[in-house]
Amino acid sequence: MVNYPNLKKISASHAAFQDETKHDTARRGYSLENALNQSNQVYLTRQRAVIHKKPTPIQIVKVDYPSRSAAKIVEAYFKVPSTTDYNGIYRGKYIDFEAKECAKGSFPFKNIHPHQIDHLEAVVFHGGIAFLIIAFTQKNEVYLIDACYVIDKFRHASRHSLLYEDIKEHGYLIKQGYAPELDYLSVVDEVYFKED
Amino acid sequence: MVNYPNLKKISASHAAFQDETKHDTARRGYSLENALNQSNQVYLTRQRAVIHKKPTPIQIVKVDYPSRSAAKIVEAYFKVPSTTDYNGIYRGKYIDFEAKECAKGSFPFKNIHPHQIDHLEAVVFHGGIAFLIIAFTQKNEVYLIDACYVIDKFRHASRHSLLYEDIKEHGYLIKQGYAPELDYLSVVDEVYFKED
Repeated sequence: MVNYPNLKKISASHAAFQDETKHDTARRGYSLENALNQSNQVYLTRQRAVIHKKPTPIQIVKVDYPSRSAAKIVEAYFKVPSTTDYNGIYRGKYIDFEAKECAKGSFPFKNIHPHQIDHLEAVVFHGGIAFLIIAFTQKNEVYLIDACYVIDKFRHASRHSLLYEDIKEHGYLIKQGYAPELDYLSVVDEVYFKED
Repeated sequence: MVNYPNLKKISASHAAFQDETKHDTARRGYSLENALNQSNQVYLTRQRAVIHKKPTPIQIVKVDYPSRSAAKIVEAYFKVPSTTDYNGIYRGKYIDFEAKECAKGSFPFKNIHPHQIDHLEAVVFHGGIAFLIIAFTQKNEVYLIDACYVIDKFRHASRHSLLYEDIKEHGYLIKQGYAPELDYLSVVDEVYFKED
């Protein structure tokens, strides 16, 4: 297995695409979200796609307005998301996905909300491209797996998780690199546009 | 001009689609966002489209974890949005829009961020459907106006606003009703799918 140095050196606070942090071995903590944000920024800049992460849904309860400064939220709570984290447009098609990290050798279904499964199903119904991106952090492998496979297993399988072996067999390994760090759109080309 | 009672009676805290509040005249405050959320919920339920409002982008600074209760955000700030508020899929196409209320007879360009204009332009470039929904609250009229018209005026016009008359001439009046409260997809059918 090839070792992919980029993915291991992105700090959790690393906003997006800053070269200097790539070579800072003191910063640890692989972050799938950062790798995807950087990749989406690269795709956007190259006019290949417009795909963004949605903001985290938050219930704001109390906001202070200190004089001469920005409004400050002083009480808020995380809400359960009703959709997936990422969506946008690629090659004229609507694209929608959820991204998840797994520390161990399986993806437990408790890591995805039933609302998100319903949402992916609705996207497929309306003709969109829908999938999950699942990162196995210990193995340093990231897979794209079609939503239909996951929905079917979520609804009908007796096991409440997807095994690494299932994902390896039914998913597609995403190539890791420099820019984009995770070239998942090349997998989308292969899987969803193969007739072209 | 017809008076549309629904739109005037939705309270700002009204989550979505609760019949009882519709007849509560004590609750005031027209909210375009609530009307759109209700409409999107109706479209979703009827399997006509999957369109959601994105959560408000927030920079979280500090989170407390009180024992036995949910994580509490105690310091956070509003961020400038880099995209529009609404997107999704309709008739297999990517759809993306921003919604704005105007109290007076014009839409000032300072009410839209340059990043949002860039975003709408990128959506059009990639073949998506992009527009603004602009509500004139005093007139109780809501218009859909194609993004290309707005982008052109934003970039090239000397005036830093769109007048009500411009929007009335170049936009499309959205029919208001009960469910959906704002039937903007019928306008999308007419404007973006007219060959079908």
